[in-house]
Amino acid sequence: MTCDLVIEGCAILTLDSGYRIFDPGFVAVGSGRIVGLGLAGESLAYPAARRIDARGRLLMPGFVNVHTHVPMAAFRGAGEDIDDRLSRFIFPLEKSLVDRQLVFESSRYCLAEMARSGTTCFADMYYFEDEVARAAKQLGMRCLLGETVVGFPAPDAVEAHGGQDYARRFIEEWQGDALVQPCFAPHAPYSVDEAHLKAIWSEAERLGVKVLMHLAETEKEAAAFRASHGSSVRYLESIGCLGSGLVAAHMIYVDDQDIEILSRRGVAIAHCPASNAKSGRPIAPAYKYRAAGLRLGLGTDGPISGNGMDMMGVTGLYPKLQKVLSGRRGEVGAREALRAATLGGAEALGLADKIGSIEIGKRADLVLADAGDFNVQPVYDWYATAVYALRPHNVRTVLVDGRIIVEEGRLTTLDEDECKAGMRAIAERCRGEIARLSKEQSP
Amino acid sequence: MTCDLVIEGCAILTLDSGYRIFDPGFVAVGSGRIVGLGLAGESLAYPAARRIDARGRLLMPGFVNVHTHVPMAAFRGAGEDIDDRLSRFIFPLEKSLVDRQLVFESSRYCLAEMARSGTTCFADMYYFEDEVARAAKQLGMRCLLGETVVGFPAPDAVEAHGGQDYARRFIEEWQGDALVQPCFAPHAPYSVDEAHLKAIWSEAERLGVKVLMHLAETEKEAAAFRASHGSSVRYLESIGCLGSGLVAAHMIYVDDQDIEILSRRGVAIAHCPASNAKSGRPIAPAYKYRAAGLRLGLGTDGPISGNGMDMMGVTGLYPKLQKVLSGRRGEVGAREALRAATLGGAEALGLADKIGSIEIGKRADLVLADAGDFNVQPVYDWYATAVYALRPHNVRTVLVDGRIIVEEGRLTTLDEDECKAGMRAIAERCRGEIARLSKEQSP
Repeated sequence: MTCDLVIEGCAILTLDSGYRIFDPGFVAVGSGRIVGLGLAGESLAYPAARRIDARGRLLMPGFVNVHTHVPMAAFRGAGEDIDDRLSRFIFPLEKSLVDRQLVFESSRYCLAEMARSGTTCFADMYYFEDEVARAAKQLGMRCLLGETVVGFPAPDAVEAHGGQDYARRFIEEWQGDALVQPCFAPHAPYSVDEAHLKAIWSEAERLGVKVLMHLAETEKEAAAFRASHGSSVRYLESIGCLGSGLVAAHMIYVDDQDIEILSRRGVAIAHCPASNAKSGRPIAPAYKYRAAGLRLGLGTDGPISGNGMDMMGVTGLYPKLQKVLSGRRGEVGAREALRAATLGGAEALGLADKIGSIEIGKRADLVLADAGDFNVQPVYDWYATAVYALRPHNVRTVLVDGRIIVEEGRLTTLDEDECKAGMRAIAERCRGEIARLSKEQSP
Repeated sequence: MTCDLVIEGCAILTLDSGYRIFDPGFVAVGSGRIVGLGLAGESLAYPAARRIDARGRLLMPGFVNVHTHVPMAAFRGAGEDIDDRLSRFIFPLEKSLVDRQLVFESSRYCLAEMARSGTTCFADMYYFEDEVARAAKQLGMRCLLGETVVGFPAPDAVEAHGGQDYARRFIEEWQGDALVQPCFAPHAPYSVDEAHLKAIWSEAERLGVKVLMHLAETEKEAAAFRASHGSSVRYLESIGCLGSGLVAAHMIYVDDQDIEILSRRGVAIAHCPASNAKSGRPIAPAYKYRAAGLRLGLGTDGPISGNGMDMMGVTGLYPKLQKVLSGRRGEVGAREALRAATLGGAEALGLADKIGSIEIGKRADLVLADAGDFNVQPVYDWYATAVYALRPHNVRTVLVDGRIIVEEGRLTTLDEDECKAGMRAIAERCRGEIARLSKEQSP
């Protein structure tokens, strides 16, 4: 069988249902799919247009980052440590600075960082998501993009909740694309009113698209819905807005009854351990979500929330914080953590039939990492290596849909210098306003 | 004034008492010391044998890693998720595998990883510390090395507590060295008996050397001393083994009375957020230590405990977990975190008169990082950048005592390939025993 590419000689973590490891192994790619897989010795049966000698490397499924706001790269590191940062700093900042150009340049820049550190698929919520789509197409990344709907005037919509019309047009334009999957992103149950939440929910069901939403994220939100409906989750349940189409981000303030409801409704969880911690919030009970059988993926959150956009940061932190929360060293092992960062994310986004593991028939979204660098060796347990030892620079080559988008650490799909120059110009435009707001709000 | 080296054009975080930032700035180095410092335009007053054009870069004090077991790099990633891992897995492993050669090769390898990611000084506890000293001298790193004393036969001592004689010889041999400062490392209050703790303490005072010890680290230890003396800290207080010469690692299980005692005795804290979390232990109350005025530095712990040896991992995690513990977003800001990772560590190790900040007269232990990489820009707040965004690969050039030990990401003081080959041989020797013990103890 002739194919486009064979990668051979590397250790392969398949993350398939048997957690098979081929070491050394090979993967054959044809027409964007995985068409061959096995021990290295068997690769000779696959003639290919190109062969990559990957000895000394580790091949894994690409990381799936299930919660981002990539256009916010323009604001990374601004307004740190401000209380109530979202309403006092971020919303005003967005009001004065966010436009199409910022969204495109900032997204493209952020995606470069993400691709170079091994992320092949991401789920984003922001304004002007058609610009994020354009950036993702340029880089060749897979994504689920949710146009934000929020109950006040936003950069892309003059009227409160105007994002819903924008989202509808965006979905019409992009639905059916091979890489970009458009959807709705109502901001949060406290920032979108009940009528609009219901309307978005039914429209999403009708169009067959996902809904991305922040949920049970802040203490203020939790207190308000505790008083009115018992909890944020119970509120959404009461208005009929919970189901398998929802990817709920953060999910910090929940109780056992909420988890039972989430489980019954099949809601997917976007767990963001780094940004939650940086906000001084309690550790979300992710191990309980897993025990309840919920789909769970990991997210970095936006560059202003987590600051680093590599998935290694959250993949290593997830098991550590779950061990702290449960008090058990064995809680969420390395294999389970790597699964959440790859297949778990794909499941959460409804893409597990296509990506998330290395199996024949799946699309070839792959990461090849250097296993020979000082921080990686020695290797006794590939999962421990992947989760606790790997760092962004170990990622050498990245494929999405069978296409090499990063080769030996550099993007193949765009000019890195031009991309950086674009971000420099945007940052210069933001600097004055950020300084002004930081001064005004400084703690 | 003629000097050896001028680094100019970079942003400089001095971490001095006024937290001055020179951007762009320069540093002049002569005879291993910082002899000039200021805004870039003033650097012309310093003719130098060599000038580094560091535009687009960030210069910081080198990281000080206050708690490591560098020879354990040979075991990285082995026996993960085993309950009571120290006594059931690590001690037996050490008994069968640790010898001089392993300690030297493994240390040299681990130090390579540490130096390349910006660590210039570290405090280590292990066996055969004279081999660690030899590795540190070869790389040109600064260190405080504590020879372990433990109440059972150890790899370097046939008799229980035999490490004390070994330590005494080691201290005699190395005391006065410009880079290597030898000291005692009684393992923990539960693994060294009272008589030996007292003897070590008085010998350390007599010789004027530090004492490194694990303290209030495990729940079992905490329960035992709670029953006998109220707490581990109160036990050491009762036997006269607390003072400013002690660098106490972990310090998880403490109460307010303990903190008052530690403060009165001037004990220094080695805070290890990553390895503590990975062990499923509660978050140590580091922000309370700082509030009590205690000296506090950050440590990765050994490569088998934290898996990664870069200080970025713990420097970003420290503020995040303290925010979680306190419930306050503003708790431990980025500036405070970077201080802990540099000057705080130097203070904890009693080296703040020499290193930890960029000030005229101090030894030149410096890190120059690329501030232009995708994961770093944009920069609005250098502390947020350094603490939350920087990753190991951003480190380009590292100086210890004025000597360049890493240049453009590569070690200048040893052959990297030879060093890796040394580790490969050691790992092959360990693989069988690790597999056997892992199988026996698997959860």
